[in-house]
Amino acid sequence: MWRELLPVGRHAGTGGYRRYAWTAADAECRDWFRDQARARGLGYEVDRNGNQWAWLGDPAAGDAVVTGSHLDSVPDGGAFDGPLGVVSSFAALDELRARGARPARPLAVVNFGDEEGARFGLACVGSRLAAGQLTPEAAHRLKDADGVTLPQAMERAGYDPGAIGPDPERLARIGAFVELHVEQGRALDLSGHRVGIASAIWPHGRWRFDFRGEANHAGTTRLEDRRDPMLTYAETVLAARKKARLAGALATFGKVAVEPNGVNAIPSLVRGWLDSRAADQETLDAVVAEIERSARRRGERDGVAVDVVRESFTPVVEFGHALRDRLAALLGDAPVLPTGAGHDAGILSGSVPTAMLFVRNPTGVSHSPAETAAEDDCLAGVTALADVLEGLACS
Amino acid sequence: MWRELLPVGRHAGTGGYRRYAWTAADAECRDWFRDQARARGLGYEVDRNGNQWAWLGDPAAGDAVVTGSHLDSVPDGGAFDGPLGVVSSFAALDELRARGARPARPLAVVNFGDEEGARFGLACVGSRLAAGQLTPEAAHRLKDADGVTLPQAMERAGYDPGAIGPDPERLARIGAFVELHVEQGRALDLSGHRVGIASAIWPHGRWRFDFRGEANHAGTTRLEDRRDPMLTYAETVLAARKKARLAGALATFGKVAVEPNGVNAIPSLVRGWLDSRAADQETLDAVVAEIERSARRRGERDGVAVDVVRESFTPVVEFGHALRDRLAALLGDAPVLPTGAGHDAGILSGSVPTAMLFVRNPTGVSHSPAETAAEDDCLAGVTALADVLEGLACS
Repeated sequence: MWRELLPVGRHAGTGGYRRYAWTAADAECRDWFRDQARARGLGYEVDRNGNQWAWLGDPAAGDAVVTGSHLDSVPDGGAFDGPLGVVSSFAALDELRARGARPARPLAVVNFGDEEGARFGLACVGSRLAAGQLTPEAAHRLKDADGVTLPQAMERAGYDPGAIGPDPERLARIGAFVELHVEQGRALDLSGHRVGIASAIWPHGRWRFDFRGEANHAGTTRLEDRRDPMLTYAETVLAARKKARLAGALATFGKVAVEPNGVNAIPSLVRGWLDSRAADQETLDAVVAEIERSARRRGERDGVAVDVVRESFTPVVEFGHALRDRLAALLGDAPVLPTGAGHDAGILSGSVPTAMLFVRNPTGVSHSPAETAAEDDCLAGVTALADVLEGLACS
Repeated sequence: MWRELLPVGRHAGTGGYRRYAWTAADAECRDWFRDQARARGLGYEVDRNGNQWAWLGDPAAGDAVVTGSHLDSVPDGGAFDGPLGVVSSFAALDELRARGARPARPLAVVNFGDEEGARFGLACVGSRLAAGQLTPEAAHRLKDADGVTLPQAMERAGYDPGAIGPDPERLARIGAFVELHVEQGRALDLSGHRVGIASAIWPHGRWRFDFRGEANHAGTTRLEDRRDPMLTYAETVLAARKKARLAGALATFGKVAVEPNGVNAIPSLVRGWLDSRAADQETLDAVVAEIERSARRRGERDGVAVDVVRESFTPVVEFGHALRDRLAALLGDAPVLPTGAGHDAGILSGSVPTAMLFVRNPTGVSHSPAETAAEDDCLAGVTALADVLEGLACS
């Protein structure tokens, strides 16, 4: 099952995956999902937002236990982020059957569309639409880098973009949603556990820092006459790291744009994007405020104006304690740990009882071809997921 | 004369000039030059490399005194860098005539083509070709951003690219070349002089710094597990400024490229270009070596590999002392000062006795629409140039 999926959308040059929503690679992944559902005699359906479902039992019965994840990828992503959750879901159903378990509630595997947002710039489009956190009008305005709109892309892939929108009846049938995901960090590796349970998704946001100085000739302008925004940017990058370290938070400048970006030109503008996350909102606010203060202080020294705009923000997601405690009871010694990354489970947690399982990542690397997980750990993940599904649906 | 030239190639949006070699704006500037020559009854010719000449007296007589500069511009450049030298040259000839001076040697005004290199990426193409510092074969390989080659561009502008190449006979007729240029710094403003004499062009070069780390998820990777090249880059930017300040040199990171350049991705690669210049080669070498050492030291701490490649280098140009001392004697109290910028005069100095005059720049700003010079200072420049031409050619 894993082996069939591995080559799909893999780039020969980088070894990374390029499975973007509504592309040919995405269609191949979706065909794979449909085939897996049919091979198991599961009821297959695609919802109005293009999310795929494979049902064991009658969906209309309600109080269903649903598991799954996504099959799309970031640019040059790894093999595990997303697919491990979908593959493990089918494998866990196989395991339940092998155990002779008798579900008292319907079970389903789901593949949410466009989780990574690699093509249209917004993450979790499939689950956001279903949960009513993204309006069809806003979704219709999404465009990819080539100017193709989301409706155009869906239409070309054979889906009806006119049908997208909130799906409360479908969500009302779900009694519990459990998403299994490769860990995107090294907490399990450090604690020596194969599988963990999510406590929360950290609040996170993006801030754009505009540093405005004065363009001038790099070969003739005295240092003391310069207003060089690259210096202010550099100091801010180092300040972000330091403030995050002191607060136990995360802060990263991974994207930058420079004008005029000439070798012999002092820049007029350096624009840097800060990604910052912390365990709670108060810490996050304090870290970002301190980074901004450092930027302004250095800006004054450099004669550089600093503007800060918050471009996006997602508040903390605390997974419900009742379901989380049940998973902890079913899995024995699995540690409970937070994550900095967003997931479909985070979106759904506002509508249905939701939990997440993490599988150990020995390097912590993710969103990269080097992302990996050991086979034994993946099998332990399947067993844990089967235990959870059995515990929730068969008792 | 100045007024007719001012609107040519000026961009309505930025107020900056876009006079790139062999474009329509360049052709207008060249027509203006031809008309100025004809209006004064000067002998007009275009050499094999497209440089324009206006002769007072017989070129073949030899030992000519030549002045001039260039009319092309950097992207969104100012009005003075180049044109001030050409306009002042014609005005100085007018002044000589008004004084009733009788030249004993031929005099000429020159407009060198493609000095800024804004279109084809190489500066001083016209003077380099004439001086044999650029081969026709290498020039034929130059391409602009749209893929148009230099020969194609020359042909479209009505010139014969097959004729370009070294022009030793023409250079052998020149006894002295004097280029007047707006200062690209504030030395004259600080010393309180309207006009100065160039001592030398600082040695300068470009170095590419490649900082290689590891791409990873900005939202989930612990700070201590990161290999973030943006940190190493930032430290190197600040180190460059500090090392340059301590050594009395210049060092600038004005251009940067990041991979993958995503807001939530720790970069795998940050590439920064260092422009550095100093009064002498030893100082320059020492500054660049210290910046490189800082980069490597921080790289070790960040787990980031640092590679440094020298992409270009121009050794020091020391203008001949004999001509420089004559100018100093003719002009009385004009200070002698170095510059960090390259010029046609620097190229020609290897072939003919060459000197430069600088006109005060009150802000030091150049290569920008904000570049300026006061009218009184420009007129003082014309007078000084006329004094120099009279002293060199009429005695």
